[in-house]
Amino acid sequence: MSILIVGSMALDTVKTPAGRHKEILGGSATYSSVSAGFFNPVRLVAVVGKDFPKKHIRFLKNHNIDLTGLEIKQGKTFRWEGEYGWDFSDPKTLLTELNVLGSFNPGIPDKYKNSRYVFLANIDPKAQMRVLKQIKNPKLIMCDTMNYWIQNSRKDLLKVLKQTNIFLLNESEARQLTSENNLLLAAKAIKKMGPATIIIKKGEHGAVLFSQKSFFCIPAFLLESIIDPTGAGDTFAGGIIGFLSTVKKINNASLKSAVIYGSIMATFAVEDFSLRRLDRINKHDISRRVKEFKKYSCF
Amino acid sequence: MSILIVGSMALDTVKTPAGRHKEILGGSATYSSVSAGFFNPVRLVAVVGKDFPKKHIRFLKNHNIDLTGLEIKQGKTFRWEGEYGWDFSDPKTLLTELNVLGSFNPGIPDKYKNSRYVFLANIDPKAQMRVLKQIKNPKLIMCDTMNYWIQNSRKDLLKVLKQTNIFLLNESEARQLTSENNLLLAAKAIKKMGPATIIIKKGEHGAVLFSQKSFFCIPAFLLESIIDPTGAGDTFAGGIIGFLSTVKKINNASLKSAVIYGSIMATFAVEDFSLRRLDRINKHDISRRVKEFKKYSCF
Repeated sequence: MSILIVGSMALDTVKTPAGRHKEILGGSATYSSVSAGFFNPVRLVAVVGKDFPKKHIRFLKNHNIDLTGLEIKQGKTFRWEGEYGWDFSDPKTLLTELNVLGSFNPGIPDKYKNSRYVFLANIDPKAQMRVLKQIKNPKLIMCDTMNYWIQNSRKDLLKVLKQTNIFLLNESEARQLTSENNLLLAAKAIKKMGPATIIIKKGEHGAVLFSQKSFFCIPAFLLESIIDPTGAGDTFAGGIIGFLSTVKKINNASLKSAVIYGSIMATFAVEDFSLRRLDRINKHDISRRVKEFKKYSCF
Repeated sequence: MSILIVGSMALDTVKTPAGRHKEILGGSATYSSVSAGFFNPVRLVAVVGKDFPKKHIRFLKNHNIDLTGLEIKQGKTFRWEGEYGWDFSDPKTLLTELNVLGSFNPGIPDKYKNSRYVFLANIDPKAQMRVLKQIKNPKLIMCDTMNYWIQNSRKDLLKVLKQTNIFLLNESEARQLTSENNLLLAAKAIKKMGPATIIIKKGEHGAVLFSQKSFFCIPAFLLESIIDPTGAGDTFAGGIIGFLSTVKKINNASLKSAVIYGSIMATFAVEDFSLRRLDRINKHDISRRVKEFKKYSCF
């Protein structure tokens, strides 16, 4: 079962208490595709500039990712620079250079159009909508966004949400979107916008899954060493859609497991800069940590 | 199995997005004793002034609490005034009037001295130490504190910790006490100070239990209606020691259950001002919510 992922690819300059790295591989599509690639083949749609290093292309190909949909455009790759404080929470953005991402108009290759599992990572909702118009018979559409789009492209985002099955967002975005402070009530309000399932990302505090009439809270897995939280949310998303692409039925039980797998994928992402740690793990490492997690958070 | 609880009793003036109430019953010993009283009889040691309303005395007696150790002293009862913002997180303290609490020198009545379960709620570590010197053969000593004592009475607090079995504190206090940002490493450092078990309170994000060589994360129970978070941490503590006083063996399994019971007690506390909601529940309500909680957070 192939997974289609559309999002950003970036060269990130990241400073954390553990160090500073310049122009390392990043982007929402990158993290989520590598994460999902542990579960099933991924079809990536994204745009980079001519300056995008060849080694990153090889890296992605080695991770179960089809790059037919990667557009290499005249110009420079999207760049982001951020700095994390001692507690590794919300980074201070020092620079955002959209470059070729600014005019990203995702074209879905014909052979991708039958993709059953679609993840619209964080990009302009207009571009997300264009993707939805090109795909044929999706089984599951999962969507991510950010505060900027909620603020500036609310109408377009609401259109996307009408067709979304699973919507990922963080606590403050849920509050911003609904003007509702209470998380339970915010989730109820978002359900009315379309998505039957809402996953609230709480970073180091875990996640909450709202599906049908129930909710499911999972705590985060505690780590001794956090190096770089960049891409944790995208890796989480990749794990979720990756896991769901392996199950027969998407129901409460499989959604719960998916959130747990997503969380575990994210714990690996933060243990090194860029996607370095994800490059060093295998399926066995993932199932071992899932087991550990269940031990540490189940009654 | 009687539980000894030593802490503060207060008249609180509290403003939250749900309203403002003047001089309502509060205090660390009050919340924790009422909470623990659902599990076993409580012996309270605290001090109030002559102005302390008789109705509060009746209220506490009705909640399984022995008030032999309540000193009613010439002067005014401890007063605290605070205001919570839209997200109900850390309140802004508008007024702290220690009054009779300022010279609190807890005397343990003879008939309390054989208490097996002892909770030293948040008061001056010097006073906590005085309690420890008076009790005879405790099975379990649980201790709470706050940033003020970590900052200003570190030496006295460290003495108390050497005799403490379970230490409760929040994330920022754990970091402040150990100068360690990572929660796992902070817990390890605190273990070296004495307590074999550490419970980190994360408020709306749940709690983490560190015991022996393992840790156990539990998420918070989501509530549609939060009215007043005052006393949530003390109610949590009361539920923990209350539950532990009912089990034969204090081990990983019973500690996990205790943290769950504590969390559930806290969810009731925040559903109304002061201890009003705790006054309206019974044991059946508690076990029902524990069941619901397990449904919403177990795999």
